[in-house]
Amino acid sequence: MKPYHTDIGWSSPDSITLFGRSLPDEILGHLSFGDMAFLELTRRVPTPDESRMFNAMLVTLVEHGLTPSTLVARLTYLGAPESLQGAVAAGLSGLGSVFVGSMEGSAKMLSEAMPDPAVTDLDAIAVAIVARFAETKAIVPGIGHPFHKPIDPRTPRLIQIAEETGFNGPYVRLIQLVAAEAGRTRKRDLPCNATGILGALCCEMRLDWRIARGLGVMARAVGLVGHILEESKNPIATDLWLRTEQEATEHFRAPPTPSV
Amino acid sequence: MKPYHTDIGWSSPDSITLFGRSLPDEILGHLSFGDMAFLELTRRVPTPDESRMFNAMLVTLVEHGLTPSTLVARLTYLGAPESLQGAVAAGLSGLGSVFVGSMEGSAKMLSEAMPDPAVTDLDAIAVAIVARFAETKAIVPGIGHPFHKPIDPRTPRLIQIAEETGFNGPYVRLIQLVAAEAGRTRKRDLPCNATGILGALCCEMRLDWRIARGLGVMARAVGLVGHILEESKNPIATDLWLRTEQEATEHFRAPPTPSV
Amino acid sequence: MKPYHTDIGWSSPDSITLFGRSLPDEILGHLSFGDMAFLELTRRVPTPDESRMFNAMLVTLVEHGLTPSTLVARLTYLGAPESLQGAVAAGLSGLGSVFVGSMEGSAKMLSEAMPDPAVTDLDAIAVAIVARFAETKAIVPGIGHPFHKPIDPRTPRLIQIAEETGFNGPYVRLIQLVAAEAGRTRKRDLPCNATGILGALCCEMRLDWRIARGLGVMARAVGLVGHILEESKNPIATDLWLRTEQEATEHFRAPPTPSV
Amino acid sequence: MKPYHTDIGWSSPDSITLFGRSLPDEILGHLSFGDMAFLELTRRVPTPDESRMFNAMLVTLVEHGLTPSTLVARLTYLGAPESLQGAVAAGLSGLGSVFVGSMEGSAKMLSEAMPDPAVTDLDAIAVAIVARFAETKAIVPGIGHPFHKPIDPRTPRLIQIAEETGFNGPYVRLIQLVAAEAGRTRKRDLPCNATGILGALCCEMRLDWRIARGLGVMARAVGLVGHILEESKNPIATDLWLRTEQEATEHFRAPPTPSV
Repeated sequence: MKPYHTDIGWSSPDSITLFGRSLPDEILGHLSFGDMAFLELTRRVPTPDESRMFNAMLVTLVEHGLTPSTLVARLTYLGAPESLQGAVAAGLSGLGSVFVGSMEGSAKMLSEAMPDPAVTDLDAIAVAIVARFAETKAIVPGIGHPFHKPIDPRTPRLIQIAEETGFNGPYVRLIQLVAAEAGRTRKRDLPCNATGILGALCCEMRLDWRIARGLGVMARAVGLVGHILEESKNPIATDLWLRTEQEATEHFRAPPTPSV
Repeated sequence: MKPYHTDIGWSSPDSITLFGRSLPDEILGHLSFGDMAFLELTRRVPTPDESRMFNAMLVTLVEHGLTPSTLVARLTYLGAPESLQGAVAAGLSGLGSVFVGSMEGSAKMLSEAMPDPAVTDLDAIAVAIVARFAETKAIVPGIGHPFHKPIDPRTPRLIQIAEETGFNGPYVRLIQLVAAEAGRTRKRDLPCNATGILGALCCEMRLDWRIARGLGVMARAVGLVGHILEESKNPIATDLWLRTEQEATEHFRAPPTPSV
Repeated sequence: MKPYHTDIGWSSPDSITLFGRSLPDEILGHLSFGDMAFLELTRRVPTPDESRMFNAMLVTLVEHGLTPSTLVARLTYLGAPESLQGAVAAGLSGLGSVFVGSMEGSAKMLSEAMPDPAVTDLDAIAVAIVARFAETKAIVPGIGHPFHKPIDPRTPRLIQIAEETGFNGPYVRLIQLVAAEAGRTRKRDLPCNATGILGALCCEMRLDWRIARGLGVMARAVGLVGHILEESKNPIATDLWLRTEQEATEHFRAPPTPSV
Repeated sequence: MKPYHTDIGWSSPDSITLFGRSLPDEILGHLSFGDMAFLELTRRVPTPDESRMFNAMLVTLVEHGLTPSTLVARLTYLGAPESLQGAVAAGLSGLGSVFVGSMEGSAKMLSEAMPDPAVTDLDAIAVAIVARFAETKAIVPGIGHPFHKPIDPRTPRLIQIAEETGFNGPYVRLIQLVAAEAGRTRKRDLPCNATGILGALCCEMRLDWRIARGLGVMARAVGLVGHILEESKNPIATDLWLRTEQEATEHFRAPPTPSV
């Protein structure tokens, strides 16, 4: 029988050790919240460049206004205001394949297409990626945006920070080549969006694509608390519910159109 | 019919504005993840001192090893590894009155007992608080610890950072006086624990006690992702389940002790 | 060290025993789903009358159309269609003090006001209950309805089934007296609603008020699956999200009214 | 702009209509909880045979003792006893691809391999199914059991009820042929387990495999409430947490074995 084991941390009456470091002496006051998140994911403290890039990535994911996820948190808070944690949990439950999955998909696509970042023919890889997705008529993750056109305003800024921190490497170039190739073959503007560049940056920072969704989950938890705070002061959930129900009821009760 | 409204943010095709600031130009690369969390809660950017204190508070809450919450996340991941967000959501669902509630309780107790931090007779307030809890035999939140004795190693460090950042004010002194008074009247060591000092720091930073639980939820979401990452590599959930079930089954099947 | 223990059930390679009964031989094909729920809550098989009453109570709670809870499940499914369980979990998370809490509140109010159902002066108890809630200006749970006026159509039917099954006892009469007294003192129609009568029926069936919420949670889980099934065929979640976001954005971008 | 719409139900002040039926007059007292679940999934009332079969299927799924899911609910309740709904939600969150997914997988496998149940050569289909899974070395869903050997005691009983109700059709035979073929080719006993037969019964009842997981979620919600009720009286969660943490801590603190 193997004993339960974790490498994350342990405590004695007068000490707490996390990832091999003393929480009071080496972590508190030394690591920011974002750096602590980096430590959780990589088990090491980030360099200043890594810290700047990683914090910018997380910050990008915190807040997107009235998304399905924030509506869920607000509607849940309406029914159980005593359980803030339940409202955040409900809001996180929808961060699956459709929304946050896009960053994950981008990171997966790029890392699988180019396991070794030292290759040189990025153009050929981009062409192969787009062709592969075209075969199954699948959407290429991380490119195009229904609203932010012709460019997603977060993309150039994230690239700029990547340049400043030394993470503007082959994966960042590859996602842009993929976007250009997809635009060319599908004959419409499909620029690299924020999730595309974030997926590439996960690869640049050597974060496994399987953990990409975790970044989104961490960051959205922060944003959801902000939405619940606003909901507690300027609520919209009751209106959202009653207007929806009323509209459906009116529609329901309308006499069916005669088919003749 | 009032239109839906949020003050958090809005987007145009080429801009994203959050809390009155341009996300690409004024937030990304300028605010750390912890500062973004501060912005969500207070709608303003923290000062350097506020940033340091607030980040230390969040970091304190990220990781506590194999807690009920992290076991929940790991056991949930075992059944639905395709849904990392579901495992985090499940883990957060238990951050209620018992665990994270202690920080909330400390902040509530202190802010209600001393709405105006300019009062001078902190000793009298501490005595009154302890007497009030004694009446109903309720546990005073934020003092004592079953394991970290005689002092919680996080407390002196958080006080030190509070001193360095100017947040070592009347609420921090009050929770210590409450701890001392409780120890005196109950005749045992009941030092101020981490949740006690964190509750006091919420008051010092003018964060409403109703949002204290939100800090815990944000921070634990980060820690839970770390645990799921470890679980994906060195799992304990299957053992935890099977050993528990087997032990209960053995116990169940034991012939009842004859009562004669 | 006490071994883990459950009285719910245990298995051997060729048998499964639940609540002391063989699952294959004494439960499957013998107990309906509702009776199995009764067995979970009371550890015994219901009598035919108990079965009829309890099933009617659960059925009352299954479906309420487009409630906050069903909107939550639909919006969650939009983001994570691969995780039906996550959508149901999110929908359940809001069944707290505000909605399902009303049945719980009714059961608690009635059982605490009348621990012994053999008392005779129900009128005096009803007056005392209403007076006690009036003191703190609290809402009396289980009476009045914003939409179903002047009577909640479920109430007379549940009372009828209670008569047929022998559960039309003192708690059912008490909630009606409470409703009448509240209507008299507050000078408006406040008839007993479905949650009021359900709370009373919990008392009649000797179900602890602490488990009343559990009935709602069980029943809504069934209804939420139905909503997700409809959402998968005739979705409304995308419209709900985009119309809400668009309306908020338009409102946001409107130039502020000059204050002069 | 299309108005929000649901076919599930609507209300007027004096009526509630669900799936075209009056809730007070045609549902309450007429449909059991299990039949109401059938109505939610199929929009029609079951025949007596359908009712008997469907209720037995749901009952099979309610309770499995100390599973990961019930441990999750109990550990969540420990932290937030005020939020029973949160504990159930957490417990449901893990009903993903690994556990409940097995019934879903069986239903999917059988319905895809045999869209038309009128075919005659079931043996050939069974051989093809097993060969297809062997190609990718994937586990055939619904066969074999780590503990219930040589047969799962639920399987013969479910088949017996299927015979009595007329649902012992080609899909039930097919899953048994698949089990026999898999046992033959893999040279070990791999009898049809409960999830295998349940998947086949979903096909027999014309329930889409996409809703199979929904049956599991509905049923487990009932079982989880039962576990939380037991936990509130005879708790195991604190021991589960502390014993796990202590064991991990002891292991952590052991000096590393010298490598020489």
